[in-house]
Amino acid sequence: MQKGTLLYEGKAKKIYSTEDEKVVWIEYKDSATAFNGVKKAEIAGKGVLNNEITSLLFLKLDEAGIPSHFIKKLSDREQLVQKVDIIPLEVVVRNFSAGSLAKRLGIEEGIQFKQPIIEFYYKDDSLGDPLIIDAHIRELEIASTDELIKLKEHAVKVNAVLSSFFEGVGIRLIDFKLEFGKTAEGNILLADEVSPDTCRLWDLETNEKLDKDVFRRDLGSLTEAYENILTRLGGRLHV
Amino acid sequence: MQKGTLLYEGKAKKIYSTEDEKVVWIEYKDSATAFNGVKKAEIAGKGVLNNEITSLLFLKLDEAGIPSHFIKKLSDREQLVQKVDIIPLEVVVRNFSAGSLAKRLGIEEGIQFKQPIIEFYYKDDSLGDPLIIDAHIRELEIASTDELIKLKEHAVKVNAVLSSFFEGVGIRLIDFKLEFGKTAEGNILLADEVSPDTCRLWDLETNEKLDKDVFRRDLGSLTEAYENILTRLGGRLHV
Ligand SMILES: Nc1ncnc2c1ncn2[C@@H]1O[C@H](COP(=O)(O)OP(=O)(O)OP(=O)(O)O)[C@@H](O)[C@H]1O
Ligand SMILES: Nc1ncnc2c1ncn2[C@@H]1O[C@H](COP(=O)(O)OP(=O)(O)OP(=O)(O)O)[C@@H](O)[C@H]1O
Ligand SMILES: [Mg+2]
Ligand SMILES: [Mg+2]
Repeated sequence: MQKGTLLYEGKAKKIYSTEDEKVVWIEYKDSATAFNGVKKAEIAGKGVLNNEITSLLFLKLDEAGIPSHFIKKLSDREQLVQKVDIIPLEVVVRNFSAGSLAKRLGIEEGIQFKQPIIEFYYKDDSLGDPLIIDAHIRELEIASTDELIKLKEHAVKVNAVLSSFFEGVGIRLIDFKLEFGKTAEGNILLADEVSPDTCRLWDLETNEKLDKDVFRRDLGSLTEAYENILTRLGGRLHV
Repeated sequence: MQKGTLLYEGKAKKIYSTEDEKVVWIEYKDSATAFNGVKKAEIAGKGVLNNEITSLLFLKLDEAGIPSHFIKKLSDREQLVQKVDIIPLEVVVRNFSAGSLAKRLGIEEGIQFKQPIIEFYYKDDSLGDPLIIDAHIRELEIASTDELIKLKEHAVKVNAVLSSFFEGVGIRLIDFKLEFGKTAEGNILLADEVSPDTCRLWDLETNEKLDKDVFRRDLGSLTEAYENILTRLGGRLHV
């Protein structure tokens, strides 16, 4: 498989075509961004860590019967994945209150919900990725009612698998963001990444934050936090 | 029935106790506010118009089998209503895009939805009345799942009745906000007001705005717009 032309450069990844039109080549960058791109930095090693962690988690999910776009890890920073049309929704699952939801509801962070909360944010940077409800999604024809049901089912399953996997290594899965896409055949597939950039991960004992909040809130070394996660997940550090 | 002590002074109304603890006395003020209280004005006659329009609409709703807190109109500015514990939700029904939703979704105003959209906003000025979803409401214990179903059913009915009533007098009901409360017996009752302060009302032919957007957007005389509505509804102008 060969790397083709650059199709899209995002804040955290570059997407290249390949000679197979159903496959794209992802390269993880070292850029860190937060608050809709307002806060930015280059953090040497972040891309390598996220590529490693995402690859590892997609494999775990696959073993648990949850397919994703992931095909294989190519190198330190590179992956092959199935090309999809991304559904413009950030599917957020929350087990504990944190971040924007704690602000929205005026509650503390770290409160456990009785049931996981699933939210949809409209993936549109110019609108600031607003929270939207099922009726908005239906009216904008972003997804059908059946597709929404599937997205929620997938999200709940991913949460169950990841929560217990992380708990097994002493980490509390506070919340996370998923993106889904449609293949040319119309199948819905988990896509994008699952990493400390897209999950809130707190140490079970100390509540230490081991995710992108370290960068958002200037809490210390981001790579140390991500290395901590990778090591606990049984991954290999590239030193 | 006698007016007792002032229980609450809001931006648009004052609520007084009466000698019956199940009944409160509402006085409609002339204050107009918008954008969470940032824009303010006194508009002579507004309170009288809203009292008249709300009384008329609650009677219409009652005839259509939708009970509300409304007991009777006492005077130009005053009503007797059943006292309730207000459920801290603004229940918004939208038939056409407008206002904050058009901004949120990045769409034009005036687009008709395939189905009415029902939204819940958390009634909390300090949080800016944020949009919330059913799962948030359940977790905050603002309302139970059963109560949410009832609120939605009530909202849909109110929309059907008001839409056809307004359409009959040449007005398009774009959207509106309801508040519900619980009586001491635990019954859910439509409360607060239904007026051009809480509805978007456009002339069917010209799309002229005949509601609080006249104030929000400086589109002319608010009282002329509200008088227009009152006259079309068959109400009596106090000149
Ligand atoms: N399998 C896939 N096929 C096609 N596109 C994908 C796939 N997986 C992820 N993407 C998209 O590729 C981009 C990844 O880049 P990155 O994460 O850097 O984007 P971003 O800066 O977060 O911007 P965006 O707002 O577009 O998500 C995203 O737009 C993501 O939705
Ligand atoms: N039947 C009722 N019993 C008790 N309270 C009521 C009843 N109907 C309405 N209310 C409440 O009385 C107040 C009416 O005042 P007003 O509309 O001026 O308030 P507001 O400025 O909009 O502020 P708020 O944010 O409290 O709604 C509101 O808080 C409303 O929820
Ligand atoms: Mg991204
Ligand atoms: Mg009010």
